[in-house]
Amino acid sequence: MKFGACYYPEHWPEERWELDVKLMKEAGLNVLRIGEFAWSKLERYEGSYDFSWMDRMIELLAAHGIEVILGTPTAAPPKWLMDKHPDIYMRDNKGIARGFGNRRHYCYNNPNYMAASDRIVTAVAKQYGEHPNVIAWQTDNEFGCNDTVYCYCDYCRAAFQAWLRQTYTSIDQLNESWGTVFWSQTYNEWEQIVLPAYTVFHLHNPGLELDYRRFASDSVIAYQKRQIDLLKQLAPGQPVTHNMWSEMNEINSFELSKDLDFASWDIYPNLCFTDQPDPRASAIQLDMARGVKQAPFWVLEHQSGAPGGNIMFPTPRPGELRRWTYHSVAHGADAIVYFRWRTCLFGAEQFWHGILPHDGIPGRRYDEVKHVGEELNRLMPLIEGSSAGAEVAIIRSYENEWVMDIQPQVMGHRYIRHFKSYYRYFYDHHIPVDLLSDEADFSRYRLVVLPHYMLSKPEAKQRIYDYAAQGGTVLLDFRSGSRLWDNRMSDQTLPGIYRELLGISITDYGILREGQTRSVQLSQDTHSYNAQTWYDVIHPETAEPIAWFGEDYYTGSPAATCNRYGQGAAYYLGMEPQPALMNALMDRICADAGAAPIQGIQVPDSIELTRRVSGEGREYIFAINHGTDLQSITLAEPLYELTTEQTIAAGTIELPGNGVFLFRKDHPLLG
Amino acid sequence: MKFGACYYPEHWPEERWELDVKLMKEAGLNVLRIGEFAWSKLERYEGSYDFSWMDRMIELLAAHGIEVILGTPTAAPPKWLMDKHPDIYMRDNKGIARGFGNRRHYCYNNPNYMAASDRIVTAVAKQYGEHPNVIAWQTDNEFGCNDTVYCYCDYCRAAFQAWLRQTYTSIDQLNESWGTVFWSQTYNEWEQIVLPAYTVFHLHNPGLELDYRRFASDSVIAYQKRQIDLLKQLAPGQPVTHNMWSEMNEINSFELSKDLDFASWDIYPNLCFTDQPDPRASAIQLDMARGVKQAPFWVLEHQSGAPGGNIMFPTPRPGELRRWTYHSVAHGADAIVYFRWRTCLFGAEQFWHGILPHDGIPGRRYDEVKHVGEELNRLMPLIEGSSAGAEVAIIRSYENEWVMDIQPQVMGHRYIRHFKSYYRYFYDHHIPVDLLSDEADFSRYRLVVLPHYMLSKPEAKQRIYDYAAQGGTVLLDFRSGSRLWDNRMSDQTLPGIYRELLGISITDYGILREGQTRSVQLSQDTHSYNAQTWYDVIHPETAEPIAWFGEDYYTGSPAATCNRYGQGAAYYLGMEPQPALMNALMDRICADAGAAPIQGIQVPDSIELTRRVSGEGREYIFAINHGTDLQSITLAEPLYELTTEQTIAAGTIELPGNGVFLFRKDHPLLG
Amino acid sequence: MKFGACYYPEHWPEERWELDVKLMKEAGLNVLRIGEFAWSKLERYEGSYDFSWMDRMIELLAAHGIEVILGTPTAAPPKWLMDKHPDIYMRDNKGIARGFGNRRHYCYNNPNYMAASDRIVTAVAKQYGEHPNVIAWQTDNEFGCNDTVYCYCDYCRAAFQAWLRQTYTSIDQLNESWGTVFWSQTYNEWEQIVLPAYTVFHLHNPGLELDYRRFASDSVIAYQKRQIDLLKQLAPGQPVTHNMWSEMNEINSFELSKDLDFASWDIYPNLCFTDQPDPRASAIQLDMARGVKQAPFWVLEHQSGAPGGNIMFPTPRPGELRRWTYHSVAHGADAIVYFRWRTCLFGAEQFWHGILPHDGIPGRRYDEVKHVGEELNRLMPLIEGSSAGAEVAIIRSYENEWVMDIQPQVMGHRYIRHFKSYYRYFYDHHIPVDLLSDEADFSRYRLVVLPHYMLSKPEAKQRIYDYAAQGGTVLLDFRSGSRLWDNRMSDQTLPGIYRELLGISITDYGILREGQTRSVQLSQDTHSYNAQTWYDVIHPETAEPIAWFGEDYYTGSPAATCNRYGQGAAYYLGMEPQPALMNALMDRICADAGAAPIQGIQVPDSIELTRRVSGEGREYIFAINHGTDLQSITLAEPLYELTTEQTIAAGTIELPGNGVFLFRKDHPLLG
Repeated sequence: MKFGACYYPEHWPEERWELDVKLMKEAGLNVLRIGEFAWSKLERYEGSYDFSWMDRMIELLAAHGIEVILGTPTAAPPKWLMDKHPDIYMRDNKGIARGFGNRRHYCYNNPNYMAASDRIVTAVAKQYGEHPNVIAWQTDNEFGCNDTVYCYCDYCRAAFQAWLRQTYTSIDQLNESWGTVFWSQTYNEWEQIVLPAYTVFHLHNPGLELDYRRFASDSVIAYQKRQIDLLKQLAPGQPVTHNMWSEMNEINSFELSKDLDFASWDIYPNLCFTDQPDPRASAIQLDMARGVKQAPFWVLEHQSGAPGGNIMFPTPRPGELRRWTYHSVAHGADAIVYFRWRTCLFGAEQFWHGILPHDGIPGRRYDEVKHVGEELNRLMPLIEGSSAGAEVAIIRSYENEWVMDIQPQVMGHRYIRHFKSYYRYFYDHHIPVDLLSDEADFSRYRLVVLPHYMLSKPEAKQRIYDYAAQGGTVLLDFRSGSRLWDNRMSDQTLPGIYRELLGISITDYGILREGQTRSVQLSQDTHSYNAQTWYDVIHPETAEPIAWFGEDYYTGSPAATCNRYGQGAAYYLGMEPQPALMNALMDRICADAGAAPIQGIQVPDSIELTRRVSGEGREYIFAINHGTDLQSITLAEPLYELTTEQTIAAGTIELPGNGVFLFRKDHPLLG
Repeated sequence: MKFGACYYPEHWPEERWELDVKLMKEAGLNVLRIGEFAWSKLERYEGSYDFSWMDRMIELLAAHGIEVILGTPTAAPPKWLMDKHPDIYMRDNKGIARGFGNRRHYCYNNPNYMAASDRIVTAVAKQYGEHPNVIAWQTDNEFGCNDTVYCYCDYCRAAFQAWLRQTYTSIDQLNESWGTVFWSQTYNEWEQIVLPAYTVFHLHNPGLELDYRRFASDSVIAYQKRQIDLLKQLAPGQPVTHNMWSEMNEINSFELSKDLDFASWDIYPNLCFTDQPDPRASAIQLDMARGVKQAPFWVLEHQSGAPGGNIMFPTPRPGELRRWTYHSVAHGADAIVYFRWRTCLFGAEQFWHGILPHDGIPGRRYDEVKHVGEELNRLMPLIEGSSAGAEVAIIRSYENEWVMDIQPQVMGHRYIRHFKSYYRYFYDHHIPVDLLSDEADFSRYRLVVLPHYMLSKPEAKQRIYDYAAQGGTVLLDFRSGSRLWDNRMSDQTLPGIYRELLGISITDYGILREGQTRSVQLSQDTHSYNAQTWYDVIHPETAEPIAWFGEDYYTGSPAATCNRYGQGAAYYLGMEPQPALMNALMDRICADAGAAPIQGIQVPDSIELTRRVSGEGREYIFAINHGTDLQSITLAEPLYELTTEQTIAAGTIELPGNGVFLFRKDHPLLG
Repeated sequence: MKFGACYYPEHWPEERWELDVKLMKEAGLNVLRIGEFAWSKLERYEGSYDFSWMDRMIELLAAHGIEVILGTPTAAPPKWLMDKHPDIYMRDNKGIARGFGNRRHYCYNNPNYMAASDRIVTAVAKQYGEHPNVIAWQTDNEFGCNDTVYCYCDYCRAAFQAWLRQTYTSIDQLNESWGTVFWSQTYNEWEQIVLPAYTVFHLHNPGLELDYRRFASDSVIAYQKRQIDLLKQLAPGQPVTHNMWSEMNEINSFELSKDLDFASWDIYPNLCFTDQPDPRASAIQLDMARGVKQAPFWVLEHQSGAPGGNIMFPTPRPGELRRWTYHSVAHGADAIVYFRWRTCLFGAEQFWHGILPHDGIPGRRYDEVKHVGEELNRLMPLIEGSSAGAEVAIIRSYENEWVMDIQPQVMGHRYIRHFKSYYRYFYDHHIPVDLLSDEADFSRYRLVVLPHYMLSKPEAKQRIYDYAAQGGTVLLDFRSGSRLWDNRMSDQTLPGIYRELLGISITDYGILREGQTRSVQLSQDTHSYNAQTWYDVIHPETAEPIAWFGEDYYTGSPAATCNRYGQGAAYYLGMEPQPALMNALMDRICADAGAAPIQGIQVPDSIELTRRVSGEGREYIFAINHGTDLQSITLAEPLYELTTEQTIAAGTIELPGNGVFLFRKDHPLLG
């Protein structure tokens, strides 16, 4: 197993290196990520390269059996480059340059930057592209981080115009697609087209807004592709990855990952102000990391202390680092690289704490990492490469997320918030889920959830129809089918192209403002539930209602429906269920679809159950206590537990706060 | 009666037009507003005009007996014009151009825009100025909407300097008026004068600030006048109007209306997030619409669905469109034009819902509009042209509103908020009011309220004195007379030039911060009331106190006074009454002035009573249930009810939620 | 005693002057501050000076025995100068000029402004440098007011680079000090260095940020020094001061004062929205005024009415002006100059109320000032020049304040807030304190408190060690010693260079977010106290714990410690005490240090006790009732009371709301 840390040899006196490497070895580390911000150290003056210090570091590591993941240093172009080409700075939507003093201050479409980036990537790749101790490359660092996706410079405007020229066959097709006739915005020439920049009031054409977001995401991906092309040529034997981060809302991470050999993600479960951060927040990131390439992934930055820029977040309590590390592994991480080895003594992140404190003396975090390392180096060979064995997929559609970021329709509503309300159900009910693009093959799943699937390509629509026809269960919800691919509204009766699949028509709808709810009833259930955010007035055509509104002028009209379609079923939710309603509805839908939770272990609420299923059909079930109190777990049958290396009898056992059990059993589906 | 919708033929395939027109006819529509954003469709390339499509549309409408209100398309200058003259863009207070992508992106003082505007207005006016089916023109669209009154470009600075040159005879008179000696801001040349733009801290000279607001309002008016001059020349037989909107706080709507043949207003009662929006908010807009020319008016955009830009507002429930339509008519609308016929499929307002939904299939809103049309086409001939028969006037002074926008004096206080506290009293007590400029003839009213009348012209002051001397009752309040016309402070003892009229002097005063109150007592009333916002320490000279403070160091000093002046009376409020105190004081003042509510109908709180009084002395009383529950109304005598076409006996009847009664009786004042 | 007002002869017709001066005399005023915004009146056109009006004013005052403090008029450069040199305007962090219309719109590093400033200061100084009625000069006005310390223009960047060149011997030393290797920010040339301006995300290098703040403060000081050098040459017999203000957070007021003959401060106790403003807020400003030169000071602007720009603050109630005036004197003011004589009739401060109202007729504020004047002119000869007799010092370190403004570490935390939590203790317990720079000689104090003493110079560190060694008691708290002077983190185990003094080491720590607390226990005290903001996990080495955490994973570890060091003691607080804990801890620490409250008078909470101790050993004790209710005071022995000129017997007496007693007794320490 890859178990390591991020290290910055350029931050420390060379005489300290040896001690650091010795301490690393003692802690069980076997890999370091280095180099991703070292441009000015590697090329202090234009064209004058110095790899000697990095050579010495890599040799020292090799001598101690520690491998290297090497970052291209393009996330922080040096001042000499910026002074030579100030047009590299990103510009804000008022056209003001976002200057020097931070990082990621470059425009993805700037030709001067492209050239400089090519040169430094080439130089580094030539130097280490065949080095046996360099096992992988990381492109740049956290694309899009610190609000660096959207740039409004002249190069971007020209690139956007070129992108549009490729997307639309003629300027009149663009005018038609965007509906520029509205408010007299018709373009006569490609060169007239604007970016969605500063206006008297921020309310741009929705087609332009969506295409700009597509273009901006594509620009990042194209820029990364330049790096990968060079690396593939100069470092042919070394795989390439990128450390994605957080929710990655602005860059299509599925597309970004297509060019990578494997996916990586940066995971900071407690980058917030709570002592007990919500594990669902990191779980969803980890499941995205597994979803982008539908494979295990690496964590290239894993929290190892209190994060902090100018303010600090909470310090991990004893046991938390171990717990979060298992949490990452449970969701598919095959490598853990902690950020960072030692807390930096200077710079903007001098409060972003690493394994070692400022004084460099190993303390309780070091001891905990060492203990985790011992465990994982023993256990991971059983688990590496295994999948989640999910029978449910939730489709994450960046296109639809952007559409709703542009036009939330309901004040305060967000695509990702709604997405998470489904995710929460599956997480809480211990039902493994895969998070997929709508381009993925989802034929093997029992249930596919498509939140806010407003616009879709014809081929995706066809596969959804086919999937249901062939026995799959699909769940769509309000606003589905409401738009065309160019972000115009559909002129078909809602739910548009999904009307036949869903067997309903919608003639009226409206918002529910934040805090406002409408009661909903289910059949054979006297409980009163609540919906929020939206209501559709649904007319079943071939569908059957499964829930009804109990309030307002649409009392008695369906709130949710089910349509039998071919061998399968298509569900529709015409409102956003509050948690209790979501539970009640999804319990029925999952039962109908045959989507089952992890079997054989009963746990209380604060315990996470997650599994990895190996190719040999073994199921590894992680039970993680994210609370601080002792909790009781009930086993239906005796199970072998790997951390304690003993078989635990059926019945009740106790799991302390921050504790982890890792059970092994045969996977019933594969058995 | 004019009953119609806004229609954008350029947004729809021409093959749909015929069906739309057929549906319009069936719904009783007889007028369409078209053209106001069609510039790029009419003149796609500079100088290349295409009226053919509009000709066809107007002919089609004429063939079906539907008349046309034509908008000049200047609210959205096309991109080719902006590219040719980028100096047309408005600039913000930091000098940054507010670019393309929205609407209203032009500076009112830009000569290149003036020329282009003249050309397109001329072209359209030439084409349709004598068309028999074009019955009126709308200038531009919603002047000032989307924060487009204040521009800080070089043209505006030069125009402001020219405006000042006309206002002040010499630079030294300006220095004297503004008090530029303060903080060493003396100007030696007109060209040195700045706009109230970005500074180290936003605290400009109050005289400069007020003159800039006057200038900005005048700039809009002067720009409209250019259009009107062309229309009067080229379309001599067609009246001209403009669709004003909301509260119109930045443009003096009285002045803007002087150049119009009749006033129009855009009315969206539920452009907010409540299910039961406050009908006072739309009532005040409607009364302004009636007040600007003291005549009935047209509603050129009337809500017909859920409004929405990137977020949506609530969908009108069944019955709401009818209720709001009657509400508009009750306050003086003689024409109702719904916005818009069909919800647009693209553009920034693709969620601004019209009568038809996106799919173009008539639904419940269409049915409701059709029903209202049937009623109004029957009833309106009785009502058109009638007045409100108000005996009370509230003076809306834009000058004083701007003064207080610049210097609220009390944190969070606003002129319009205070203005509405009086309006609320009259609305709630079913006392018809006219909203007037202080240039209006108010001699026929029993009571004239002048909120925050800080500065006034000598002629207005004289008419107020004369009005009181001749028997009128006038009500002034705190800060009255505190300023000179140039926004300097008066050096007279407060209330300055109104000291004699009010018979008081004020030697001390102070703020009450938000949430802070002081108790107030009235004579012969043991109730304890509360004042907020302000306190004056009043010394009656010839006045009598009518309320006293009961708290703080000014306990026992008058909070309100009444001075008998000539045949009339002058009241003064030295604080802002909270609602209960406002009710108690105004009950006394109205009784003293003889300002009576609508007689003969007792209604509960949620019922609005509004009347229109025809020239023949008939009183048409609208009872509108703005709530959702059934309410009981009591008639003192039998009255004929027009919607049901029957006489209702004296006693109690029931009015359902959203319901409307329209009673007819002889007006006692005119009887 | 100097007792006067700010007066602007240029604001009033010359025919009014005589009446004003007569009214001033009657009120007991003997000094006026004039001239500080009169540049455009003195030099309306470049090079054309007119001193005639000021000559006449000064002669009129001289004739009536009223002396003059003359302000240099540089706080408001005239428009002709700005038009000639628009590069004088300050620029914001996006490079946008902050234009004309306010005041203080100049960059401290602009050479064109330096030259113009030199000329006007020279002209005024030549005119009045030997005038016998001009008794002092004020430089400029309120440096830094209205957000005018930080400028981002090209001159500032060049000046910053020059400042850095002087601070660091080489560019590589700067790179080392700032740690520019982090994020590849290495500078190769001084000219490459940026200001901490606009970037993709505001997170600049902490070393750069701190040096920029040092540089900006130094720029103001250097600019003032130019003025002082001219004044010393041309007005050699007249002392020079500056009116500092508020908390002076951005300019090092100790350094600014070094060049002054005496310190002055502007005091507005009720520049907020409360009826009972916190007297600690003004007390701390007054103690700073006394602290900057460790001597009595002048109040050059003292509140005399409701302040107000575009909004107004509360009007002082009867008795408040007298109360606040005594409050200022009690803390060391030897001169009181009210702002302003009469409320201005125009300009941005037309609501900043003076002694006279807008109408110029003396009212209750005039009467109260007159009454105070009579008292003070009688009493002050006894008190002038006397000190506070403080045995406790709190060190105010601007360097550390800036460090924490840049990196609060804990969201919402501020140095000055923490500083005030100590100040509150001493104020509430009637223990006189001096506020000092860490360059001051504090050997004579019994207790020295050093809040958040993160970085310090070697000589300061040495004096702290020496002070403790020689018997002093020192108090340090969390983050002490955590940084080097260049704002890097120390690589020593915490508390860094204070580890030996404090006898502890700290291996772990973390934040407590706002609202979060941890319980703390003291020995021999069953009460449960609370800490907030931070926790240190402390290992006593030679120290003894005096408080322990009672919660979380560090339960039982010390929250505060005491280390006996040499003849003295060094206390450490590893958390921020909430008020009750602060009281309990400080009671013990003060008792241990022998720091005693003012003796012999028992007062309830709302009574302030402050003293001045004259050179002859007399103690003048001010008892000030800041509440509105009558309060009882208990004297341990008979004391002479100066305002009533009678001896008050031991026992209980009553002090009305807003009331003041001024007792005289022999100072026990000096006795």
